[in-house]
Amino acid sequence: IICAFLYYIFGMSVFDAITHAMTTISTGGFSTHNSSFAYFDSLNIELISVLFMIIGSLPFVIFLKFIHGDKKSLFNDDQIKLFFIILLTLVILTSFWISRNMYTNDLYFSIRISLFNITSVLTGTGYASYNYNLWGGFGLVIMIIIMFIGGCAGSTTGGIKIFRLQLLFRGAKTQIKKLTQPHGVFITSFNGRSVTDETYNSIMGFFFIYILIFILASIGLSLFNLDFLTSFSAAASAISNVGPGLGNNIGPYASYSSIPSGAKWILALTMLVGRLELFTFLVILSISFWKK
Amino acid sequence: IICAFLYYIFGMSVFDAITHAMTTISTGGFSTHNSSFAYFDSLNIELISVLFMIIGSLPFVIFLKFIHGDKKSLFNDDQIKLFFIILLTLVILTSFWISRNMYTNDLYFSIRISLFNITSVLTGTGYASYNYNLWGGFGLVIMIIIMFIGGCAGSTTGGIKIFRLQLLFRGAKTQIKKLTQPHGVFITSFNGRSVTDETYNSIMGFFFIYILIFILASIGLSLFNLDFLTSFSAAASAISNVGPGLGNNIGPYASYSSIPSGAKWILALTMLVGRLELFTFLVILSISFWKK
Repeated sequence: IICAFLYYIFGMSVFDAITHAMTTISTGGFSTHNSSFAYFDSLNIELISVLFMIIGSLPFVIFLKFIHGDKKSLFNDDQIKLFFIILLTLVILTSFWISRNMYTNDLYFSIRISLFNITSVLTGTGYASYNYNLWGGFGLVIMIIIMFIGGCAGSTTGGIKIFRLQLLFRGAKTQIKKLTQPHGVFITSFNGRSVTDETYNSIMGFFFIYILIFILASIGLSLFNLDFLTSFSAAASAISNVGPGLGNNIGPYASYSSIPSGAKWILALTMLVGRLELFTFLVILSISFWKK
Repeated sequence: IICAFLYYIFGMSVFDAITHAMTTISTGGFSTHNSSFAYFDSLNIELISVLFMIIGSLPFVIFLKFIHGDKKSLFNDDQIKLFFIILLTLVILTSFWISRNMYTNDLYFSIRISLFNITSVLTGTGYASYNYNLWGGFGLVIMIIIMFIGGCAGSTTGGIKIFRLQLLFRGAKTQIKKLTQPHGVFITSFNGRSVTDETYNSIMGFFFIYILIFILASIGLSLFNLDFLTSFSAAASAISNVGPGLGNNIGPYASYSSIPSGAKWILALTMLVGRLELFTFLVILSISFWKK
């Protein structure tokens, strides 16, 4: 309601304000306009959207804690810290690269379009205020990679999610430490608590299956004669529930209408598996589930 | 020596036979001709090459066992079985796809070029008998994915290697079983022996860092204004020590001469890290190594 109200104040119609508020906070990303947020072309509206996409990407339990007086948790959470570090690093890097290679000397405009579109794809919202297909190889590489990241666990975002990537990274660091000091005892911790081998194994399994399903979906799509960029980005966008892919067929201002039906079935299945976070779906496929 | 002799018998010059035998068995992949194996255009030579690329991708200790009378190990090894399953599946799939979409009804030619080029890229050898850039989206997707696979552990190949992928897959399966039967005890096994959590964790760490370095290298390359396909495939080819990438700049019949110097430094570093199997290199970067 706050988001809709702000959208309305800064120039959206009532209908647009309500619909966009619903897809902003749920990081769902649909717009009532084909040109998405480029239709409004308003810095204020983009900033409101960025704010609420970020809110939608934070663990919701933190807001409860915050309201109940635990002000520290918002700033001390490992996951939230890393989310902001990743977001800021990407926005700064992309802004500089764009202003240097695309719009010479227009750093302000570069920051504006980087901030909005990077936030949108990173959080899996999928709005666009600019056709980032035109950002060259760098833009495409960055966009396809951040599709996988997503927001924090406990939020509405899709993707691998920050806490899993964080644990994977810390686990890998522990491995390297063990190699230099084979008799040392190293514990991977998260928010001050140690991570059990069981948790680590389950996250590792998740990561591997995620990549595996992405690869199988890409191969499946490419069998329908879709080009390399379309196959890869459609698979990445589907499993992480982002929305738009990359390239001219399925990019930010295109729809998936040109994709053959068979490929759409693959995408639908991939979206479902991604949204259910793999295991829920894969358990149904396992024999032992049906034996019981 | 056997490989060189066979090459010579079937039409290579003495010099070509010796040089190609050296780069076949080591899955190194350099050719004395810019057009690689397309220069010879000989089915026999291609078949010999396929045979010895495969030999170079099997665990060498198995050959020793075989010579010492343990005939079973060659056929019972989990890794070797999966390697052949993957290779055959890919060759069959690619042959059918190519014959249907590229060379209508010429299944023989499709099998011939699939067998050679798939074996070459899967084992990380990097020879080419055909410009597989022309195989459309499917060819590019398959080629970039199999670059990561590589051959068996204990061979001369690069890549993630079969046994790691096998353990990752089995570990993930164990995770799913645990979800359906939370009190069950499930053991991941490899060649009849159970896999400890420590081994599993170390392989998981390896997989994650592999993907991470690939991603960082791709981003690094794209900063030099290389296009999407070039950045991605060059990074994949470098970390897995394959050789050629995809696309017109660095494809099977091109060289890396058009790549800017800075990007070449990134590629050189990535090749080194990939060849040393990450940990050896990363340990040097860790503080605790230097403290001792």
